[in-house]
Amino acid sequence: MRNIKLIIEYDGTNYSGWQIQPYCKTIQGIIQDKLSIITKSPIKLTGSGRTDSGVHAIGQTANFKTESRMTSDQFQMALNSLLPNDIVIRHVGEVNENFNARYNAKLRTYRYTILNEKTSSAFLRNYTYLFPHDLDINAMNEACKFLIGTHDFVSFATTGDPVKNTVRIVTRAEVSIPESSGFDGRFTIQEFWSDRRMIHFEIQANGFLRCMVRAITGTLVEIGRGKIKPEEMASILLAKDRNAAGPSLPAKGLCLINVSYKDFVK
Amino acid sequence: MRNIKLIIEYDGTNYSGWQIQPYCKTIQGIIQDKLSIITKSPIKLTGSGRTDSGVHAIGQTANFKTESRMTSDQFQMALNSLLPNDIVIRHVGEVNENFNARYNAKLRTYRYTILNEKTSSAFLRNYTYLFPHDLDINAMNEACKFLIGTHDFVSFATTGDPVKNTVRIVTRAEVSIPESSGFDGRFTIQEFWSDRRMIHFEIQANGFLRCMVRAITGTLVEIGRGKIKPEEMASILLAKDRNAAGPSLPAKGLCLINVSYKDFVK
Repeated sequence: MRNIKLIIEYDGTNYSGWQIQPYCKTIQGIIQDKLSIITKSPIKLTGSGRTDSGVHAIGQTANFKTESRMTSDQFQMALNSLLPNDIVIRHVGEVNENFNARYNAKLRTYRYTILNEKTSSAFLRNYTYLFPHDLDINAMNEACKFLIGTHDFVSFATTGDPVKNTVRIVTRAEVSIPESSGFDGRFTIQEFWSDRRMIHFEIQANGFLRCMVRAITGTLVEIGRGKIKPEEMASILLAKDRNAAGPSLPAKGLCLINVSYKDFVK
Repeated sequence: MRNIKLIIEYDGTNYSGWQIQPYCKTIQGIIQDKLSIITKSPIKLTGSGRTDSGVHAIGQTANFKTESRMTSDQFQMALNSLLPNDIVIRHVGEVNENFNARYNAKLRTYRYTILNEKTSSAFLRNYTYLFPHDLDINAMNEACKFLIGTHDFVSFATTGDPVKNTVRIVTRAEVSIPESSGFDGRFTIQEFWSDRRMIHFEIQANGFLRCMVRAITGTLVEIGRGKIKPEEMASILLAKDRNAAGPSLPAKGLCLINVSYKDFVK
């Protein structure tokens, strides 16, 4: 059996998330269906992790076993021609038979994008959360420092989630204004999106609890607008109580950027 | 009667273009309807010009006359709350009673965006034209020089278009790779869109014939891939024959960036 790894980009707007569910349109379900058509045999696709309904991905990673003799390029072309155009296979590669996209994932990186403007954008409406008030980026970054390291993140977990271990290791957490936000008068790609001011929150960890990034970003927004002090991030973590943290922000601003692995290339 | 100017951004994907047509969903039609609801009287909205079905805008400009006493901010808020989220009013301002968004427009700027990659993008699929082969940007810019100035652009006009005067004055024409295309390893907004390589063609003129930008861009792509020499752009113009030029590219890559006027601010 060959083991094939996929890197997948998707616009999650019109899907009920990554994971297969009965009667729902899901990313995993659609790709698995197309792979079964292409290989003429049932395929089980393993993703690095779920993304919720409406969450996007640039670097979702998955793998499947097959006896097909198709090359990686052939798989990519066949999949991209059958998939709807809001799901794109960016890379296909053969990997070691032991590779498992979920269990071998070392670090996952998510980005949450805030459109920090008075009015929405016709182009970014599905990919950003509109927040029309001033945000103190320095205060938000001050608070980010408390996230880094090994912590129990249960204060940012979905209430009632049956997950047992809520400890995660955060290796990076940073709020930034994309360099090309175009306030220096240069021609930038940002102009394509109307010179809109965006704020990115990027976080990298060995894993995430359900809704964790959206709850952390919601808390950072409360900090950025001055409702919570940056140093309170430490006490929110220690409280181990969802009510201590800020609200969860909408799914549409969230994007799975990257999943990293040890080298499993065949 | 007050005269109100609007600057409008729209994702043209789901519309039959700007101009009102019976039984069609058009941008002009929807905004006019909402304005009539807000002001409780029939409103006639004048746009700077039509955009075709599927064409986008960041800076479409329009005006309407009204006896309403609403402030500009109130108009903007009321419109944005009633409009679908793929149409956004970016600016509302009161202008001199003589201002006409169509007849007083001095210069219009369009941008055509090519996604110069092997695979499509889940996020940019509706805003770019995928061209997966190498393009010689220098050759394309060489050809652009022949477009600048006063020329008869009938070679780039829709065949059978009844417009009489096909002479236009092009003041700027340039092919570029957006600075932030992210090949220098810096963190850029382009990352949001998967580090995708884009090529922009921007053109500014006193006016455009129907499909002119799409036909010019199609010709530039033929030049960029080496099928037509840059200097042939001059003979294509002189031929005054649509068949002399390259094919028209799809509407979805085109965006009306800006319309400029003399100062009519009240």
